[in-house]
Amino acid sequence: MKFLVEINVMPLKALLDPQGKAVNATLHGIGYKEVANVRIGKHINLEIEAPSREVAMEKVTEICSKVLSNPVMEGYDFKLTEVTD
Amino acid sequence: MKFLVEINVMPLKALLDPQGKAVNATLHGIGYKEVANVRIGKHINLEIEAPSREVAMEKVTEICSKVLSNPVMEGYDFKLTEVTD
Repeated sequence: MKFLVEINVMPLKALLDPQGKAVNATLHGIGYKEVANVRIGKHINLEIEAPSREVAMEKVTEICSKVLSNPVMEGYDFKLTEVTD
Repeated sequence: MKFLVEINVMPLKALLDPQGKAVNATLHGIGYKEVANVRIGKHINLEIEAPSREVAMEKVTEICSKVLSNPVMEGYDFKLTEVTD
């Protein structure tokens, strides 16, 4: 089975997000005063082959926590969609 | 009305994505051979005040195309959720 995985890695809520703050300030500066609380993280798409959805979930969780995110500063969530081709 | 907006900005499909390629190679190198087609972009969350969903959509489209993405290299999509508080 093949799955398309969409992963979001975001800075933890408790931490400042300087990149988000900068974009927030820029948007205010050019007139978009109605915008607030900008936070910027990573969006990662990948495909994974696995014998079942459970195995795929396990692998992706492992990859997210070991490789794609820094648990000191970031949290992640992901969504699996089966690909039929 | 207040909306939570989740935006994904991704490198266009037609373009190489060196960051994604590097992560793909790293994952293969440490034993995750079942992973393919890694692509990495940005995930941006923000809040926006607007009189209606339509106005919010319009504003966000403007912000995405003018500020948050580079149309030469990146595409975007977003999702609006009304926040009731």
